[in-house]
Amino acid sequence: MEGYRILEIKQSVFENNDREADLLREELKGNKTFLLNLMSSPGSGKTTTLKATIAALKDEFRIGVMEADIDSDVDAATIEQTGVKVIQLHTGGMCHLDAGMTRQGLEGMGVEDVDFAILENIGNLVCPAEFDTGAVKNAMILSVPEGHDKPLKYPLMFSICDVLLINKIDVLPYFDFDMAACERYVHKLNPKMQIFPICARTGEGIEAWTDWLRAQIRDWIG
Amino acid sequence: MEGYRILEIKQSVFENNDREADLLREELKGNKTFLLNLMSSPGSGKTTTLKATIAALKDEFRIGVMEADIDSDVDAATIEQTGVKVIQLHTGGMCHLDAGMTRQGLEGMGVEDVDFAILENIGNLVCPAEFDTGAVKNAMILSVPEGHDKPLKYPLMFSICDVLLINKIDVLPYFDFDMAACERYVHKLNPKMQIFPICARTGEGIEAWTDWLRAQIRDWIG
Repeated sequence: MEGYRILEIKQSVFENNDREADLLREELKGNKTFLLNLMSSPGSGKTTTLKATIAALKDEFRIGVMEADIDSDVDAATIEQTGVKVIQLHTGGMCHLDAGMTRQGLEGMGVEDVDFAILENIGNLVCPAEFDTGAVKNAMILSVPEGHDKPLKYPLMFSICDVLLINKIDVLPYFDFDMAACERYVHKLNPKMQIFPICARTGEGIEAWTDWLRAQIRDWIG
Repeated sequence: MEGYRILEIKQSVFENNDREADLLREELKGNKTFLLNLMSSPGSGKTTTLKATIAALKDEFRIGVMEADIDSDVDAATIEQTGVKVIQLHTGGMCHLDAGMTRQGLEGMGVEDVDFAILENIGNLVCPAEFDTGAVKNAMILSVPEGHDKPLKYPLMFSICDVLLINKIDVLPYFDFDMAACERYVHKLNPKMQIFPICARTGEGIEAWTDWLRAQIRDWIG
C-alpha cells in the first residue's frame, strides 16, 4: 500500500500571483523551510535528479517533496522509496503551478517538520516560467539529448532560474551537444545563472550541485 | 540573407475554437491542402524529423512549413535549407497555437501553392493538446531519452494524436526505454494510434512513416 497521498489541486483564486508568492516566501522564512522549484521539459530527469539530491542531503535536512503531474503517481511512488515525505499533486490538466496552488500542496504535505521542501513542477519549459510559486530558488534541468539551442527557444525559463543542471552528460558522446555554446546562450540571457553539468543516474556532478544547494538552504533557514 | 519571413502571431479573438478549427479544415479541403500538426516536448527532434520527411516527399507534393516558436528563428533557418517554403511564427510567450493563430500562419505563408502544409507547434506536451489547430492529422514525437512512461504523465496529448513517432531509436542501447511498455501505455489511451519507431538523424524508419503520411495526404487532396 502506498504511504503517500494524492491531492487534487484547485485553480487559484488570487488575482495577484506575485503578491501571493511573496507572502508564501515570508511564511516559509518564518517556518524555517526552504522551498526549491524544479522545472524542465518532460523526460529530462527531474525525478532521478531528485533521488540523487535527496540521497546527498537527507541526513542533514528533513526533506519533503511535492510531485506535480497532470495525471499518474509514478513519481511519488519513486520518491517514496527514498524514505522522505512525499505527496503527489494532480493539476487536472493545468500546465503549471502558481503560488496559490503551491500553497495547497505545502498545506497538504505539511511543512512544520520540513527544512527543505521541493516542488517538482509540471514537465514544461513554457508556462511554469511565467508563475512565481513562492519558491526561494528556481532550478531547471536541461538534458543533453534536448540540444544546446534550447535557451534560444525558451528564453524566459532560462532567465528566471537561479541554477541550471545540464543532465545526462554520460551520453554526450552520442549527441551533438555543444556545452560551451549552451553556457554562452544561457549567460547572455542570465549572467548570474549557476551551471552544473551532472549525470543523475551515475551521480557525476551531484556533489558540486548539492554543495551549492546546501549553502542556499543553510543561508535561508539559518 | 534569409528568404523566410518572421510573423508575430496575435492572440485569437474567437470564443469557439472547435468551430474555427472545423471551418479552417473545410477551407483547406476546398483548397486541396493537407495540414499536419506536429507536436512534442522541447528537443525531441521535430525539426530533424521534418527535414527527413521533406526529403522523402518534396518531389511529390508542394510543401510549406510553419515553424512556431516563442522566440528565435533557428528552425526556419534549418528548414529553409531544404528548399521548401517556410515561415517562422513567433507566439510572443504563448504556449500553444489554436485554430485562429494557425489561420494567421497559413495566411502569412500562403497556401494556394501548397499541397502539404506542416505546423511545427511549440515544444510542449501539455497546452498544444488542448487546442484543435484545424489540422487534418495530429502527429507527435516522443524521443527515447524522454522515457517510456510519458503516456502516463501526459495522457491528453497521447489521446488526441493520430500518429506517434518514437524518435532517436539509435540511442536505445544507452537508455532504459521499454518499447513494448510504451506501446502498451499508448494503445490503452488511444487504441487507433499509429506508431513508427524512427531515427530522424540516420533515416531509419522514415520510409514507413512517410508511406503512411503519403496515403493520408493523397486521401485528403484527392
